[in-house]
Amino acid sequence: MREVAVIGVGMTKFGVSDKTNIELFSQAALEAIGEAGLEPGDMEALFFGNCLGDFEEGQLHMAPFAAAAIGMPTTAPATRFEAACATATVAMRHAVLLVAAGVYDVALVGGAERCLRMGTDLATRAFAMASDAYYEGPTGVTFPAVFAMATHMYAAKHGVELSELKRCMAEVSVKNHRHGALNPLAQFQKEIDLDKVLKGPMIADPLQLFDCCPFSDGATACVVVAAERAKAAPKQPIWVAGMGQASAGPLYAQGDLTRVRAREAAVAASYKQAGLTAADIDVVELHDCFTIAEILALEALGFYEFGQGYAAAAKGETTFGGKVVVNPSGGLKAKGHPIGATGTGQVYEIVKQLRGECGPRQVAGAKVGMVDTLGGDLGTVCNLILRS
Amino acid sequence: MREVAVIGVGMTKFGVSDKTNIELFSQAALEAIGEAGLEPGDMEALFFGNCLGDFEEGQLHMAPFAAAAIGMPTTAPATRFEAACATATVAMRHAVLLVAAGVYDVALVGGAERCLRMGTDLATRAFAMASDAYYEGPTGVTFPAVFAMATHMYAAKHGVELSELKRCMAEVSVKNHRHGALNPLAQFQKEIDLDKVLKGPMIADPLQLFDCCPFSDGATACVVVAAERAKAAPKQPIWVAGMGQASAGPLYAQGDLTRVRAREAAVAASYKQAGLTAADIDVVELHDCFTIAEILALEALGFYEFGQGYAAAAKGETTFGGKVVVNPSGGLKAKGHPIGATGTGQVYEIVKQLRGECGPRQVAGAKVGMVDTLGGDLGTVCNLILRS
Repeated sequence: MREVAVIGVGMTKFGVSDKTNIELFSQAALEAIGEAGLEPGDMEALFFGNCLGDFEEGQLHMAPFAAAAIGMPTTAPATRFEAACATATVAMRHAVLLVAAGVYDVALVGGAERCLRMGTDLATRAFAMASDAYYEGPTGVTFPAVFAMATHMYAAKHGVELSELKRCMAEVSVKNHRHGALNPLAQFQKEIDLDKVLKGPMIADPLQLFDCCPFSDGATACVVVAAERAKAAPKQPIWVAGMGQASAGPLYAQGDLTRVRAREAAVAASYKQAGLTAADIDVVELHDCFTIAEILALEALGFYEFGQGYAAAAKGETTFGGKVVVNPSGGLKAKGHPIGATGTGQVYEIVKQLRGECGPRQVAGAKVGMVDTLGGDLGTVCNLILRS
Repeated sequence: MREVAVIGVGMTKFGVSDKTNIELFSQAALEAIGEAGLEPGDMEALFFGNCLGDFEEGQLHMAPFAAAAIGMPTTAPATRFEAACATATVAMRHAVLLVAAGVYDVALVGGAERCLRMGTDLATRAFAMASDAYYEGPTGVTFPAVFAMATHMYAAKHGVELSELKRCMAEVSVKNHRHGALNPLAQFQKEIDLDKVLKGPMIADPLQLFDCCPFSDGATACVVVAAERAKAAPKQPIWVAGMGQASAGPLYAQGDLTRVRAREAAVAASYKQAGLTAADIDVVELHDCFTIAEILALEALGFYEFGQGYAAAAKGETTFGGKVVVNPSGGLKAKGHPIGATGTGQVYEIVKQLRGECGPRQVAGAKVGMVDTLGGDLGTVCNLILRS
């Protein structure tokens, strides 16, 4: 298998948009292709992520239209992937594998989502379709409820007072908002304080409003190429060192919600391929759909022992200058979470960090970064390790 | 790249079902895995096709649940593909590529669709979401209308009287129903005569009811393995000789609806990889969503010059003993068309044909077969060439 590099990335501002999915994607894709010093006609395939285009716009089968919109040729296969919130990361993994295998030399990957126009009531119901439709959805378990249960389980299992856990979770939110305030593409570029989080409206006990990431519109893209083609790239190539993807069944079959089995399998594969451990990671963009989710990820990714990661943000260990910088972009919490675009949005941030292009939110000396994306209620996890 | 074989196939009866997508898929998958002499735990990845699970069952993110339902391990990535009617063929191509590349030794591919429970009115609208949602859907162009326009264009372009073209199209329907009557898994196992087609209700002028394939529930699956693993297979391995996938933009950008540009690109790639031409193909399962669609495919796949394929069925050239046997399963027209499952359903038939297991519908001496699947209104085409 050949070495594979990312040589261009693009991203729209996340937030509320009046553009269509394909318009959003076109903006991100053309930015990525431009950074790569290439033309749309050079793209040999499109790996496209979108979750809910049918509900959002009445648009299924979006990949070939997205490819055509930016001027890709008919000979380039355009393929849609859907893995709930991990959609674009799964698309990315397949693109990298097929470039590594020699099927393509140059591939475009990306995703788009514009869920806000369907309204937050329908969006909540639509997102919940990523959990089991027969034994979970009908019970009223939407995603805030899943992670609320995980919070209670975490507190009970590890003997942490719920009030203390909630304070530490609130520190995750404060940290990610502080990071987001440094990111001109973030949905929320505003710092908040602990009091704001802890006095927020209750969403699903014990999760309050600022424990939850927003609904977002947005698109992201990147260009991946074989090593030979990376030499001519205008920007510093960022290399894919390891990848992993794993799957798990419905929540009722998982038992312990504080252990995301698919993540443990996916990250083990990533570290093995890269020949690295958590200690080697300088910066990580991980799946903080809820504040507790960042804590669960920190532990499963190996940065902390299980039960030991909850105070990481409170101790300042996951911000600039800490043990590992977590979600310098602001994360899903502050940067936003356009579900089908989130994965390559995380890639965007890590690539920019490893190039040293992040200005006030730059992680000093970052050489190795990780992407972690969780789909559904623990059903899919996909990880990437990137290096400069 | 390694040689890749199909060593097991499975398929539910197509038609109306009261099972869920995952129940249907489980039946097909376990049949395929059993034929392969393997266990679900041996499957290293799932490539899963489904188009409209969110509309059908409120179920997005179906792949990991499908994998878990049959007992696949967490370490096995389960990935959903969606490419309108070409969904499962696209999933198949990606599975074969990644087995060929050495990423997996054994992979499960399949698809499921159970569109009938949403009702035919909603199904018609939902299927139409595979065409462009901004410039086609709002004009009222559903798929019968697209192929009705293609019929008029074909008649005008090639100077064929519409009544003569319609008679020849009706012969396609009669032929595929005759084939379907020999297939115990077909939705319609009943012969019809020319009169029945030509006196059917008008759907979209000039397409009448029996020019159109039905809505169907069903699931299909196959097990693909690297050459080394094919040696121990209980059944004769069937080899993947060539593949192609291509994409095209919205209909308004395509111009000539009688030329499916994505098919021409995809099949050229397939023939090139296989080192074969149309003359080498003994049997083909192609995308007869409408009778005119079979004619368009016959030409683009190289069996006839453009403008010369319309009378193939009328002349008996596409049935048993003819030039090339087209849709011996009954095709989408009579076997049925559970959209996300159709592609691997076509693979099922070709594999059974090349093994010589098709009883009364066996194509005598078939050695090389082709799969052709069209997604949306000419947006995606994926082809496979299989050999014994």
